[in-house]
Amino acid sequence: MTQKWMPPIYWEGEAVAILDQRILPQREKVICCTTPEQVIKAIKTMAVRGAPAIGVAGALALALGARSMRMGDAREFTRKFSLLCNKVKEARPTGANLAWAVERIYSVVVENPRASVKELQNLIKVQADAILTEDVAVCREIGRWGSEVVPKGARILTYCNAGALATADYGTAVGVIRSAYEKDPTVQVYSCETRPFLQGARLTSFELMRAGIPVTLICDNAVGSLMSQGKIDMAVVGADRIAANGDTANKIGTYMVAVLARTHDIPFYIAAPRSTIDPTLPDGSGIPIEQRDPAEVTHLCGRRIAPDGVIAINPAFDVTPNKYITGIITEVGVLRKPFGKAIRKALEE
Amino acid sequence: MTQKWMPPIYWEGEAVAILDQRILPQREKVICCTTPEQVIKAIKTMAVRGAPAIGVAGALALALGARSMRMGDAREFTRKFSLLCNKVKEARPTGANLAWAVERIYSVVVENPRASVKELQNLIKVQADAILTEDVAVCREIGRWGSEVVPKGARILTYCNAGALATADYGTAVGVIRSAYEKDPTVQVYSCETRPFLQGARLTSFELMRAGIPVTLICDNAVGSLMSQGKIDMAVVGADRIAANGDTANKIGTYMVAVLARTHDIPFYIAAPRSTIDPTLPDGSGIPIEQRDPAEVTHLCGRRIAPDGVIAINPAFDVTPNKYITGIITEVGVLRKPFGKAIRKALEE
Repeated sequence: MTQKWMPPIYWEGEAVAILDQRILPQREKVICCTTPEQVIKAIKTMAVRGAPAIGVAGALALALGARSMRMGDAREFTRKFSLLCNKVKEARPTGANLAWAVERIYSVVVENPRASVKELQNLIKVQADAILTEDVAVCREIGRWGSEVVPKGARILTYCNAGALATADYGTAVGVIRSAYEKDPTVQVYSCETRPFLQGARLTSFELMRAGIPVTLICDNAVGSLMSQGKIDMAVVGADRIAANGDTANKIGTYMVAVLARTHDIPFYIAAPRSTIDPTLPDGSGIPIEQRDPAEVTHLCGRRIAPDGVIAINPAFDVTPNKYITGIITEVGVLRKPFGKAIRKALEE
Repeated sequence: MTQKWMPPIYWEGEAVAILDQRILPQREKVICCTTPEQVIKAIKTMAVRGAPAIGVAGALALALGARSMRMGDAREFTRKFSLLCNKVKEARPTGANLAWAVERIYSVVVENPRASVKELQNLIKVQADAILTEDVAVCREIGRWGSEVVPKGARILTYCNAGALATADYGTAVGVIRSAYEKDPTVQVYSCETRPFLQGARLTSFELMRAGIPVTLICDNAVGSLMSQGKIDMAVVGADRIAANGDTANKIGTYMVAVLARTHDIPFYIAAPRSTIDPTLPDGSGIPIEQRDPAEVTHLCGRRIAPDGVIAINPAFDVTPNKYITGIITEVGVLRKPFGKAIRKALEE
C-alpha cells in the first residue's frame, strides 16, 4: 500500500536516485546523482526534504563520496572524508537527522583506525544502507505506537508533509495516520497546505489520496476555524529537531497549530524517530532556524504574487515549546511529560 | 498621499468603475459597469472586495439600477427596485456593510411614498453618493482614533487587506497604520499574505509600499513565530461583520492571529466603521460564513497547485470571539469591553 509511487530516495545502480519533490504531484521526475555535490544540491534546493529523508540523503551522499575517493592512504582518506562530512552536514541547518546520519557514518571511520580505504568504503556503504533500511522500519514502529493514541473515527489534522516522502518510506506523522487507518477506516485527515512550499497541498494530500485515506485540503489559516467548530479530534505532525526537554522545531506554522490545539483542548502529537532528538540542546532556544529565500514567498509557480521589490521573510521552521505537546511518538513508544526524563530513557533503549 | 493610485470604486461618467483587485498589483485594470448585474458579478468574483468597499459597490449598483428603470409608476418602480435590492444584498453573505448600504438606500424609497420615479431616482443617487463620500471620511476618523492606541515605534501586524482598496479610500486597519505613520515614521508593518486570495501579499503590501510605510511580507503561518520572538507590538485588522457583543467575523485566519496575540499578550484591535456592526445578532454564532470555490485553494495563477481531484474547503471568514479583542476602533472612538454596552452607545451617536 505504501509503495504505489517511487520512494523519495534510493539506489539506482551506482547512483543515488532522488524523486524531485519540488514538482510533485504534477510530475514524477527522478534526479540521478552520481556525486555527493549533486545530492547536497538536491537537499539545499528541497528536491528532497523532510528531516528523516534528508538524513538518508546525507548518508547516501557520503557513501557516494567515499566510493569516489580513490587514494590508497587511509589517513588521507579520513581527512578528505571528514571534509565531505562537514559539507554534507551543512546542507541544511535545522533538521537533526542530517547531522545524526553524518556522525553515525563518520563514527565507523573513527572506530576502525586500522581499516584500509577499501574496507572503510565498504563500512560506510553498509552503514548508509542501514540508515536507509532502518528508517522504513522505524517509521512503521512509529505508526504502530501512534495508532494507539488515535481515537476511533478521529478527524486528524496534520501539517506539512511528514509522510513517505519525508522519510525513506511510510512516514512519521503520516505513518501514524496510515497505521490508524489500517485498523479503523473511519478516520479522516485535514491536510494544511503549508505555505510557502506547499508540502501539505502537494505532497501530503497526494500521499493520502494514493493510500485511499480520506483527506481534505485547507489553507493553513483555516486551522483555528475548523478547531473552533469542533471538527478536529487530534493533531499529529513531524519534527525537524527535538531538544532534550521536548521543545520541537518543525515546519513554520507548527507552533500556530499547537497553540490553537491547546486553546481548543485538542491533543497535539509529534511523530519522529529518535534520530530527530538533539540531546545536546537543553531546550528549543538553541535550535538554528533556517531562513530561506524570500522569493519562495513572493513567487509561486515561477510567477510573482507580491509587489515587485517587497521585503519578505521566510523562516522555514518554528519552535513549539514542550508545554503544548501532548506526546512524542517515537519508534520505542509514545513519550509523555515530563519529556526530559522520557527522552533520556528513550535514547538509552 | 492616499491617492497615488485609482480608488477601488468610483463614478466614471454614468458608469461605475471598479479597479479589478484580482490582478493587482501586476496590472491596474478598471472594469466599467453600466448595469447593476455587472457590479454584482464584480462583487461575487472579488474584483471588488473588503466589506466597506462592497457596501459602496452595492450602493452604486442600486443607483445604476434605479436610473435604468424607466417606468412611470412609482409603485411599480418600488416593486422592481426592491427585487434589485435583494439581488444586490445576496451578492456576498458575510459582510454587514452590503446589507447596511442596501437598507439605507431602500429606506429613502420607503420614507418618500409620494415621490415620483424621477425623484426617487435622484434620492437614490444622492444616498449612494453619500455612502461613497462618507466612507472616506469615516476611514479617516477611524485612522485618527486608532493612531492613539499605536505605541511609539510599534511593529504592527495586519492581516488581509483592510486598506484603501477595501474601502472607498484610506482604509480601516490600514487607515490606522497610515494615521500612526504620519505622526510617527518609526512604525513598521508586518503584512500576512492571506491565503488563498493573497489580499495581504498583493494589496496591503502594495498600498503600504506606495505610501512609503515600511512593510515586511510573511506567510500567514509565520505569525506565531514572529510573536514568540517579541517582534510584534500590536495587531490591527478589519472586520466583515461585528455582532452586538463584539464577536467579529473577518477574513479566514483572523481568529488564529487573535489567539496567538492573546497567547503572547499582544493587543489585538479591530478597525471598522459602525456600518459593519450587525446589532440584530447577539453574538458571532449567527454570522453566515461564506464558503467559496475550493479551486481558489487548489489553483493559483491559473495553475493547479494540489493533486487533481483533491477535496478542499475554502471558508472565506472566521469568527473571533470578543474575549480576544482589545478594542474596536470605529469612527466615533475606540470601543472597549464590555463591548455590548460600548457598541449600543456607539450606534446611538
